[in-house]
Amino acid sequence: MTLSTLRLNANADRRIRAGHLWIYSNEINNKITPLQGFISGEQAILETSAGKPLGIVVLSPNNLICARIISRNTEHTLSKSLLVHRIQVALSLREKIFAKPFYRLVYGDSDLLPGLIVDRFGDILVAQLNSSAMEQHKEDIQAALIQVLNPKGILWKNDSSARNAEALTSYVEVAYGDVPEWVTLEENGIAFEAPIMEGQKTGWFYDHRFNRAHLMPYVKGKRVLDLFSYIGGWGIQAAANGASAVTCIDSSHFALDGVERNATLNNVAEKLTCIEGDVFEAMKELKANNEKFDVIVADPPAFIKRKKDFKNGQAAYHRLNELAVRLLEKDGLLVSASCSMHLAEESLVDIIQGAARHNDRFIQIIERGGQGPDHPVHPAIVETRYIKSLLCRVLPN
Amino acid sequence: MTLSTLRLNANADRRIRAGHLWIYSNEINNKITPLQGFISGEQAILETSAGKPLGIVVLSPNNLICARIISRNTEHTLSKSLLVHRIQVALSLREKIFAKPFYRLVYGDSDLLPGLIVDRFGDILVAQLNSSAMEQHKEDIQAALIQVLNPKGILWKNDSSARNAEALTSYVEVAYGDVPEWVTLEENGIAFEAPIMEGQKTGWFYDHRFNRAHLMPYVKGKRVLDLFSYIGGWGIQAAANGASAVTCIDSSHFALDGVERNATLNNVAEKLTCIEGDVFEAMKELKANNEKFDVIVADPPAFIKRKKDFKNGQAAYHRLNELAVRLLEKDGLLVSASCSMHLAEESLVDIIQGAARHNDRFIQIIERGGQGPDHPVHPAIVETRYIKSLLCRVLPN
Repeated sequence: MTLSTLRLNANADRRIRAGHLWIYSNEINNKITPLQGFISGEQAILETSAGKPLGIVVLSPNNLICARIISRNTEHTLSKSLLVHRIQVALSLREKIFAKPFYRLVYGDSDLLPGLIVDRFGDILVAQLNSSAMEQHKEDIQAALIQVLNPKGILWKNDSSARNAEALTSYVEVAYGDVPEWVTLEENGIAFEAPIMEGQKTGWFYDHRFNRAHLMPYVKGKRVLDLFSYIGGWGIQAAANGASAVTCIDSSHFALDGVERNATLNNVAEKLTCIEGDVFEAMKELKANNEKFDVIVADPPAFIKRKKDFKNGQAAYHRLNELAVRLLEKDGLLVSASCSMHLAEESLVDIIQGAARHNDRFIQIIERGGQGPDHPVHPAIVETRYIKSLLCRVLPN
Repeated sequence: MTLSTLRLNANADRRIRAGHLWIYSNEINNKITPLQGFISGEQAILETSAGKPLGIVVLSPNNLICARIISRNTEHTLSKSLLVHRIQVALSLREKIFAKPFYRLVYGDSDLLPGLIVDRFGDILVAQLNSSAMEQHKEDIQAALIQVLNPKGILWKNDSSARNAEALTSYVEVAYGDVPEWVTLEENGIAFEAPIMEGQKTGWFYDHRFNRAHLMPYVKGKRVLDLFSYIGGWGIQAAANGASAVTCIDSSHFALDGVERNATLNNVAEKLTCIEGDVFEAMKELKANNEKFDVIVADPPAFIKRKKDFKNGQAAYHRLNELAVRLLEKDGLLVSASCSMHLAEESLVDIIQGAARHNDRFIQIIERGGQGPDHPVHPAIVETRYIKSLLCRVLPN
């Protein structure tokens, strides 16, 4: 394969040499290698302003991030053989950590596979192709996954918002084999069923696995409130670990059906109350009825999706945590989480501290968690770290 | 008890109302309530510039942090009864988390007991009194600990550097009962012995407990290098969890005797190599001998003790991590930790990323840990968070 070159402006190589994988469109020398000359998904040799090769990139010429490094070795282009190698390296990390095959198998840039996400549910793989390059290598990806894992089925869950920026259409389709609508998985020893076709993202949020595990020692005999419960990742796990009663709130009827399904699966249906509706309104109603909980999990969807949402999103985190603190017993536990990449952990600390002081409470942060090890962080790319989860003890002042 | 008042300057109450517990000497209205008028360890009612009471403080009039809030309720002075209550609240958190009585029982400001540290080794308590106020309440503290826990022995390990700033003398003395030189403890299911009289700090570092636990799934059959090993917290735990060989390096002969003692206790002495000497020099020698390790733990003492040490300390972290990366096998694991409060986690990430790039390696951060839940963080006091522990996979580029 003969590749074109993509030439950087002077000094634009510094960040890349320091380890980053992304190239911004304003870093390209458009006189020598105009971005319009490339097609979406094309591969090229990235070179410094002096013409020294830095590695292979895949291009998204119309995107602000116009290219991503796929390899620092100019011999290693994106191909089935590179995909097989990278998937094997990714798999070997997960197999070290997890005894059972339920995890995020490929996490984009952090596994040196920008634009590719693969979640594994035993024999079933759910993949997201989030870049033109990965979309174009669909067949190679499928062949590589089959070669490495020999799964029963693969689903393309290609409906993420990241595809918009790449002008890719949204679709969900079976790539290979038999793919059921719901799959079974195990997390921290508890069985779950997840809707991989109709559910949020890939159907399940593996990223909070260890944060959930770390909450479990505290839930025995406790009343637990799971806000934005989705299909009960926190709530059902708490019920199965001895919580005396669990209330799940979600605005989605479909999600709460999933909670009930997972409650039945774990024989904890009698402990469960589901509330369908706006979470903020439901919390106000609980407060009006003088309800109190020992443990509250506030793990909402991203309130800050883009930088411009920051102010409104931050206000929403404030409201949510204030309401949660008010619903807590005297010596209660609050899990305050955020998956908004734009909200720094320290900002979330400030938000819970504000919520505590406004309610004349004192908070101890007893654990600060991130995403699990199957979502490794690329040390040069802060965007690869997104989960913040603060386990807080909320005491009287 | 009739207390004097301590008057703040205008607006100095804002940080306090937002949750902080420390008052700096330049925040005091020295015309109305001159600091020279107070004696070390005295209690007073803190009030705003307008004379509104904010709570009870204990004073260290010659210290930059001249007062710390002990209670926001002006009725609750530092006394045996307050100590009993606070120790009970602290104990109830630890008892929720840990099945066995081995933990930091009291962690200063975060347990609303500024200046008091208590580590529990079963029936033996090791306490540090780090402020004049706590030194003066020594008898109350002893009585409160006996009332709540009925221990066999209590040791005052009053030799911390924090005592210098309070002009307190350094001493180690048995406060009560029978106190052995070495105590037994259990961490993550592994037995250890720790030298509470002659050892570092209180004799054991409970703060890394969970970071050590999270490393253990990766050590089976691996060659492990434990740098600045002290008495083998990481290394012996790895050996007991199936590591094939463990090398511990420390400059202290006494510490390495502790490693051997703990190796014998766990029947892993035959896997162990101890190297006594400067850690940097020993690493260079290992490199010169072409030694390689699968897992390296770089958990040094604080290289940055005071802000003015920052540049030199940062350089030391750089050197340490560079050398560690060079000694790692192709797909190796590095635990890079820092207990320097002045080194932000992001700076440590930059340091390991630099070490990786200089050696043409690629790093995945698979876990970011802090101190354990028996060292809770006070959300308004960043100084209460000090441990950073990055579990990194180090791959070829």
